[in-house]
Amino acid sequence: MEQAAVARNRKVVLREYISRAPREDDMVLVDGGTVVLRVPEGAAPAVLVKNLYLSCDPYIRGRMRDFHGSYIPPFTPGSVIEGLGLARVVDSTHPGFSAGDIVSGMTGWEEYSLIDKPEQLNKVQQNDIPLSYHLGLLGMPGFTAYVGFYEVCSPNKGEFVFVSAASGAVGQIVGQLAKLHGCYVVGSAGTNQKVELLKNKFGFDEAFNYKEEPDLTAALKRYFPEGIDIYFENVGGAMLDAVLLNMRAHGRIAVCGMVSQHGMTDPVGIHNLFYLVTKRIRMQGFIQSDYLPMFPQFLSDVTKHYRDGRIVYVEDVSIGLENAPAAFVGLFSGKNVGKQVVCVSQE
Amino acid sequence: MEQAAVARNRKVVLREYISRAPREDDMVLVDGGTVVLRVPEGAAPAVLVKNLYLSCDPYIRGRMRDFHGSYIPPFTPGSVIEGLGLARVVDSTHPGFSAGDIVSGMTGWEEYSLIDKPEQLNKVQQNDIPLSYHLGLLGMPGFTAYVGFYEVCSPNKGEFVFVSAASGAVGQIVGQLAKLHGCYVVGSAGTNQKVELLKNKFGFDEAFNYKEEPDLTAALKRYFPEGIDIYFENVGGAMLDAVLLNMRAHGRIAVCGMVSQHGMTDPVGIHNLFYLVTKRIRMQGFIQSDYLPMFPQFLSDVTKHYRDGRIVYVEDVSIGLENAPAAFVGLFSGKNVGKQVVCVSQE
Repeated sequence: MEQAAVARNRKVVLREYISRAPREDDMVLVDGGTVVLRVPEGAAPAVLVKNLYLSCDPYIRGRMRDFHGSYIPPFTPGSVIEGLGLARVVDSTHPGFSAGDIVSGMTGWEEYSLIDKPEQLNKVQQNDIPLSYHLGLLGMPGFTAYVGFYEVCSPNKGEFVFVSAASGAVGQIVGQLAKLHGCYVVGSAGTNQKVELLKNKFGFDEAFNYKEEPDLTAALKRYFPEGIDIYFENVGGAMLDAVLLNMRAHGRIAVCGMVSQHGMTDPVGIHNLFYLVTKRIRMQGFIQSDYLPMFPQFLSDVTKHYRDGRIVYVEDVSIGLENAPAAFVGLFSGKNVGKQVVCVSQE
Repeated sequence: MEQAAVARNRKVVLREYISRAPREDDMVLVDGGTVVLRVPEGAAPAVLVKNLYLSCDPYIRGRMRDFHGSYIPPFTPGSVIEGLGLARVVDSTHPGFSAGDIVSGMTGWEEYSLIDKPEQLNKVQQNDIPLSYHLGLLGMPGFTAYVGFYEVCSPNKGEFVFVSAASGAVGQIVGQLAKLHGCYVVGSAGTNQKVELLKNKFGFDEAFNYKEEPDLTAALKRYFPEGIDIYFENVGGAMLDAVLLNMRAHGRIAVCGMVSQHGMTDPVGIHNLFYLVTKRIRMQGFIQSDYLPMFPQFLSDVTKHYRDGRIVYVEDVSIGLENAPAAFVGLFSGKNVGKQVVCVSQE
């Protein structure tokens, strides 16, 4: 029998559970020894992949807590971080995959991963679209924007839409879909560079730097003199309170992020929920995976928009597995410009 | 021309705008002089009524503030308080109403009111049902419970339902409708007497006195070991935070009251909204008047339930217009047992 090749396999592992905002040193790059580049014999069908791109997403922070009541279980300290990734199949004993296939799905923050539930992987067709976009525009963030906007926000042409964290992985797509739908769209972000992107690259009608607004309620009043019909909520906290004051009757708030509240054991209180009643607001939390049957439609729609030049996408690519902890931590201070990914290997 | 009768007309007027919880002395009983018991000639069609019962409702507090952004405008200081009431027509120049008719609708906190928009009045059929129930079980609170439960909560048989302020005007009906729908129903109230009512009169599966629970989260965990599917939110504040921790995935929260927050310029913050996302909760504010086309169906359904003995109703009747301020203020400290009404006159 032919001798299988071997390779070194570096990994990023969680040091221990945290209950505050994540820091770089909560994760450690370790040498995982050598890995045999073949699926072990006698095991259930599995796929061995070489990881190409890893996706840095805020929800990963939730898995770093010692909390078992969520929709996704926590990591185990000392074990490799998991997240969505894009990878090339090196070996497969599953009939659906062959060496050379490009796949997306849950993988490890390491150079090679043995995927023992290959049915959760999706094959990705290589074409003119950048591979890493399958972690952003055409991946979970894009799908979050798509179902959040169309299914949760119930948008109508001409409505007033506000997006917070608007240059982020999800927000930039929400804003562009809302513009394509005929809405008036304003976004907020935390640097002037991002505000420029919103106005000049993503085509938002208006955008503002929330850090330069001493009074968020007044800022929203300025940008929405007639009020907000739809708020795509990505941040929580003071912005949500200011939005509640500025909503119109029968408004809708799609809640998917609250990234600013992720790291807090005592998150900022929301004080203006009474307006849910007086303005008959529907505020709905959602998770994209509840809508998976819509994924093919999403992929087809958004791919077409992208090819036709009606949607653009901005990502922030960190090069090298060793930079994954910094890239991930940067999400929580808004360091990333656009969708944050880590390139582990280009091929 | 026949000489019209006259009568003294006492009124309860708002002293000045308030921005805290209402106190008795925010309202003053004044002698409004004599009123001629005939609709003035030459005016637009109007109806002169003798008020029989007045409804004390928490939303009235919102009209005592100098705030014009709500769905209903504020009162004018020095003018009579308005609210829903039940009245007998004394004179009418509107073709839809005649002397002797019993009507419900917006009226003044006074002995006689001239209603210049009679199209908002509803004629009430006198039958075996107590007249005052048209302000409660068969009025706005009953309709709020009906549309809130069936239209906003999207209930399914066997689901776990929690109702706060459960012995109140709305809560007692929500709980009974939920039981009729095949749900498991728990209510909270602020005295042991009310808890007894919930269990022994309204047929809730369980009930507890929230003032005797040092840890609301633990209390809810005890009554809902599998979590809450539906929360009919009447109080806001700490209870809402505790509920968010105890909701099940895809739960629904119908928001109609937040009575504990009404009087506050700086309401208690809600800290657990992040669970809207992880549990995919829909939280929806609503106002019964948005559902008016369903009123006839409600009236027919609930009247039948009442006649068949499947629904009971408890009201707290204060006798005399002079007791209206105390009755209203009592709402905010939970003094009332059941729906609070004021009997101005029995005939």
